[in-house]
Amino acid sequence: MKIQFQCDYNEGCAPEILSALAQTNMEQNVGYGEDPHCENARRLICEACKAPHADVHFLVGGTQANATVISSILRPYQGVIAAETGHIAVHETGAIEHGGHKVLALPAINGKITAQQIDDCVKAHYAEDGPEHTVQPGMVYISYSTEFGTLYSLMELEEIHDVCVEHGLPLFVDGARLGYGLASPASDITLPLLARLADVFYIGGTKQGALFGEAVVFANQSLAKNFRYCIKQGGGMLAKGRLLGIQFETLMTDNLYMRLARHAVNEAIRIRQVLLEKGYPEVVPSPTNQLFFTLPDKDLAKLSPDFLFSVWGKPDNAHTTVRICTSWGTLPENTDKLIEALKEI
Amino acid sequence: MKIQFQCDYNEGCAPEILSALAQTNMEQNVGYGEDPHCENARRLICEACKAPHADVHFLVGGTQANATVISSILRPYQGVIAAETGHIAVHETGAIEHGGHKVLALPAINGKITAQQIDDCVKAHYAEDGPEHTVQPGMVYISYSTEFGTLYSLMELEEIHDVCVEHGLPLFVDGARLGYGLASPASDITLPLLARLADVFYIGGTKQGALFGEAVVFANQSLAKNFRYCIKQGGGMLAKGRLLGIQFETLMTDNLYMRLARHAVNEAIRIRQVLLEKGYPEVVPSPTNQLFFTLPDKDLAKLSPDFLFSVWGKPDNAHTTVRICTSWGTLPENTDKLIEALKEI
Amino acid sequence: MKIQFQCDYNEGCAPEILSALAQTNMEQNVGYGEDPHCENARRLICEACKAPHADVHFLVGGTQANATVISSILRPYQGVIAAETGHIAVHETGAIEHGGHKVLALPAINGKITAQQIDDCVKAHYAEDGPEHTVQPGMVYISYSTEFGTLYSLMELEEIHDVCVEHGLPLFVDGARLGYGLASPASDITLPLLARLADVFYIGGTKQGALFGEAVVFANQSLAKNFRYCIKQGGGMLAKGRLLGIQFETLMTDNLYMRLARHAVNEAIRIRQVLLEKGYPEVVPSPTNQLFFTLPDKDLAKLSPDFLFSVWGKPDNAHTTVRICTSWGTLPENTDKLIEALKEI
Amino acid sequence: MKIQFQCDYNEGCAPEILSALAQTNMEQNVGYGEDPHCENARRLICEACKAPHADVHFLVGGTQANATVISSILRPYQGVIAAETGHIAVHETGAIEHGGHKVLALPAINGKITAQQIDDCVKAHYAEDGPEHTVQPGMVYISYSTEFGTLYSLMELEEIHDVCVEHGLPLFVDGARLGYGLASPASDITLPLLARLADVFYIGGTKQGALFGEAVVFANQSLAKNFRYCIKQGGGMLAKGRLLGIQFETLMTDNLYMRLARHAVNEAIRIRQVLLEKGYPEVVPSPTNQLFFTLPDKDLAKLSPDFLFSVWGKPDNAHTTVRICTSWGTLPENTDKLIEALKEI
Repeated sequence: MKIQFQCDYNEGCAPEILSALAQTNMEQNVGYGEDPHCENARRLICEACKAPHADVHFLVGGTQANATVISSILRPYQGVIAAETGHIAVHETGAIEHGGHKVLALPAINGKITAQQIDDCVKAHYAEDGPEHTVQPGMVYISYSTEFGTLYSLMELEEIHDVCVEHGLPLFVDGARLGYGLASPASDITLPLLARLADVFYIGGTKQGALFGEAVVFANQSLAKNFRYCIKQGGGMLAKGRLLGIQFETLMTDNLYMRLARHAVNEAIRIRQVLLEKGYPEVVPSPTNQLFFTLPDKDLAKLSPDFLFSVWGKPDNAHTTVRICTSWGTLPENTDKLIEALKEI
Repeated sequence: MKIQFQCDYNEGCAPEILSALAQTNMEQNVGYGEDPHCENARRLICEACKAPHADVHFLVGGTQANATVISSILRPYQGVIAAETGHIAVHETGAIEHGGHKVLALPAINGKITAQQIDDCVKAHYAEDGPEHTVQPGMVYISYSTEFGTLYSLMELEEIHDVCVEHGLPLFVDGARLGYGLASPASDITLPLLARLADVFYIGGTKQGALFGEAVVFANQSLAKNFRYCIKQGGGMLAKGRLLGIQFETLMTDNLYMRLARHAVNEAIRIRQVLLEKGYPEVVPSPTNQLFFTLPDKDLAKLSPDFLFSVWGKPDNAHTTVRICTSWGTLPENTDKLIEALKEI
Repeated sequence: MKIQFQCDYNEGCAPEILSALAQTNMEQNVGYGEDPHCENARRLICEACKAPHADVHFLVGGTQANATVISSILRPYQGVIAAETGHIAVHETGAIEHGGHKVLALPAINGKITAQQIDDCVKAHYAEDGPEHTVQPGMVYISYSTEFGTLYSLMELEEIHDVCVEHGLPLFVDGARLGYGLASPASDITLPLLARLADVFYIGGTKQGALFGEAVVFANQSLAKNFRYCIKQGGGMLAKGRLLGIQFETLMTDNLYMRLARHAVNEAIRIRQVLLEKGYPEVVPSPTNQLFFTLPDKDLAKLSPDFLFSVWGKPDNAHTTVRICTSWGTLPENTDKLIEALKEI
Repeated sequence: MKIQFQCDYNEGCAPEILSALAQTNMEQNVGYGEDPHCENARRLICEACKAPHADVHFLVGGTQANATVISSILRPYQGVIAAETGHIAVHETGAIEHGGHKVLALPAINGKITAQQIDDCVKAHYAEDGPEHTVQPGMVYISYSTEFGTLYSLMELEEIHDVCVEHGLPLFVDGARLGYGLASPASDITLPLLARLADVFYIGGTKQGALFGEAVVFANQSLAKNFRYCIKQGGGMLAKGRLLGIQFETLMTDNLYMRLARHAVNEAIRIRQVLLEKGYPEVVPSPTNQLFFTLPDKDLAKLSPDFLFSVWGKPDNAHTTVRICTSWGTLPENTDKLIEALKEI
């Protein structure tokens, strides 16, 4: 059995969550997210975000959360500004377009876009002679951490926030890997800062210790009006909504969410150090749980009987770029084994 | 704490499933439904359906399953024929229309439609002078058991199947409560019969002992081409697909699925007998886990401190129609308490 | 060559329009409805409606106008209340559903719905335990004159207006046959009254003397924000927008629109009188340009070599219900011939 | 009054069309494109394309034709490959996305894409580990002539055709300016060649002498199944379909379509020669009716009191790139005036 480092969703969930599910199993609860566990989880999230009036909703997965939030905000003729490498732009089978909206994709550096690019994009639209012939920018989507493990600094986020305010564009932060971003020593962002700078974001559960589930936080609660209709229509309203409540209740208790995230990041830092020491080129400098390095194929051949990575590209015939992921569930002994194997090459 | 009989999703899941989740928790698996548990669950389902070539996919919930299957089959100008009381027609916030399709709703008796009605609907469409001005019937949707707990007989299903074949319409059976139908003593349908008569149907998990999840079975596998794209686009592809695999693997082992269903139906039969003895009018004669009776409000007032039902209507100022549901998880002692309370009125 | 009474769009257009098109043909104009003819037509329409601040847009046809207006107003989870016989409910190939919205169809009497029905529909939605599971009523659509040639009285319209205001629902009036309604001696509605009672309506051109085109009037101009984007996206923005401007400029000059409409209604009244004298049952009592009568098949057999009607139904084996239409272009001598033929039977 | 060279739709239509409309005006015809004029126009188009079995449909405008054809062909999870400068990618307010589909935009040189790019795009999709996470390429869209006036050579078209066949992708050619392409001395394409190489294309009327209208030709008629439903649903089915029939009947008679196109191209060639003589840099080398040149602002200032061009960009503070268009209706004396003015600078 290979040890899997190819993604951050190959284990089940934090044992605390399994316990909570077992303990509450025969409780009878009303459905659709209106049970006491969901109530409690919402309260804990608002507290953690220092956003007492935020409107919190639970969805099953990331693509669903992205599609539901975006289509709930945009008017039919509007599009969403995003990095060309953003998850909604490339890895959701056109779910945003399926909802009727164009992704206005901007060139990205290490998975990130800038306030300047957003400003240029909006101004170019309105400078058109006949702006109604092109898709109107209606909101901005960024990921934190990004699909390449990188982070926006507080200053970058504030600039993006400001340009969004200037143009009346809601800012949406995809937080499928939010914890892995916040837990990085390179991060200067916190949940309360995020709740101040973003109109809506989500606290990713699926990749961060839950069985599944994302907690969508509408810091700007005016955008959340009738959002439950959108969830239901989009097929995201779990009959046993309690499952999401119980999971986030658990994750938000005793700082479990951040502890799990920190573990993943620490394991990644250990691996990264060895990769850098080995002199392998780092394709994207990532301070979170995803690492992107280019290795000689002959070195990979030595690792592949025991370890599974994601192939990210083939820069030439003798090298391969791989993604190496840790997660909340990465066993330290498995990290040790990988480090040892790397050193032995 | 009231005892809840208002729906069939107010408990967690069968303990066997919790065990299986705990046991496999730290296994590492590839994502998106391509892991060995999903493989195994698919194999077990094909066996149970005696449909070795069926294409089986797992989705998170019923609305999602309905919307994804229907929009994967229809051409843009086609609609789906359904009972006006069908779940897709009334209780999915227009998810089918959101996908671009009209629900061609037919008057229903006790939640059911007939082959004759389908035939008439299709013929009326093509008899139009300019059929392209009206929505083309593209498939047929029925529920088994229906939203009112009723069942199609084998003969009725065969007639519907035949008229669908005649008009080239795929037949889709919503099986959110499939087990509760199959387990009824009034049923003359089996999984293999269903796999022969329906083009696609699903084995409902959410309401029948799973935490969540529906197993969509394409008996007519030609309809399943590229269905994984549809699942992903519709936000229904779980990263940790194993969760669905493990649950259905468990449900399909040792006949657990049917045992759970039979329990619910038996508990319902016990309650129904008392309701009939009390002389309360039965609004819809249901042989499955949902009961629909009209009670005097003064009687309800005696029950409501201890029991929760769904309100289904107000026939007059002194009476209320309620839905009383049992489930896989109904505790026999709770059924006893309800029966006792009814007798005491 | 049969004389055609089967619809109101079988001739070309009013000669005044052809002349105007010829006269302006080699003028050079900017595109997309921003030329002086469109400007002028908009001004004339606002004047005729005594609605100086109305926002007027030109679209090519009725289905397009309906779909574009409705999808511009509704949120994704909302539906449009309409008569079950309304054009959007039955004769537009599901264009509204294609745009993502359910038509909430109400039983109609002679093509009309009532304020009471609308009120009941809205209240039933919010009375649901979990209204987010059903489509939220988002606007109301009625036709004037209706698909059956009938008219709402001023009192009925005011009641509908009031209930719409009460529930915050925009009221949209399909005016594909608006002139034929306004021109009826049975009408107590005028353009200014309509502009006061409806949020948005259109002045139909296609069936009323134009080559094609509908003038959408947003009396409630706040609903028109960015409507040009919707037109363009919906494929309704004519490059040579002047064509619509010139046509409506002409129709709104010297009362041409109403004169053409009155002609059609007068011809219909002449035919109707004979049909009533003959004792044929009138299926729907219509005071406008569409007549619905049931004739014995043996009588129809005498008419059909010379005249074309629309078949509307077969009440029994010996009778047929037909629609007989007049239009702005019906030649009086053709009406005479039909009347004579009827009398001779 | 400025002389307008800013687009190719600022005049009305060819006088022959106005005459035909006038002559047929009081004819009574059945609606929706099933009249004898449409029949005749279809026959003439099939003849001109030497494609006796092609299925021809008439639509009102280009955006509508593009959106209707594309959404009729694609499955929900598929996208359309196009140049990033293609009309559907930039100037249709996201009409394709509104229909649910992503435009898979490829970098373009002078408005064109290559067979190699298409091949790479398709292969990259299927090389994905989990192709169902990205939009499946479902068809290819190119424009002839392109949005920059350029042309594909026969060899280029054949290569594109071949790669489309290899990957099972229908090839759709946007012919909004088809005549201006075919009429160029630089073109080695003909209607019959196009009908052999494309699965579906359209013969643009709006920009080429008609009042409005595009004739969609399904050379691969299997793709046209039920296309009338799509037209109606998309709001493109003109009640007075005759208007389109009469126009194309006229254009396809006595070679009028090509004569009008040739006139426009000839006028453009005369202007281009002078622009090249003046030494102005040509931004895109176009052999058709659209010219793209960069002029010093001081020169433009001399022209702008008398002539209207489209602004295409501002390469620096002292220069502007303009589009100069001729059309079927460009008066030779206006071309003379522009040439004279250019020479005088």
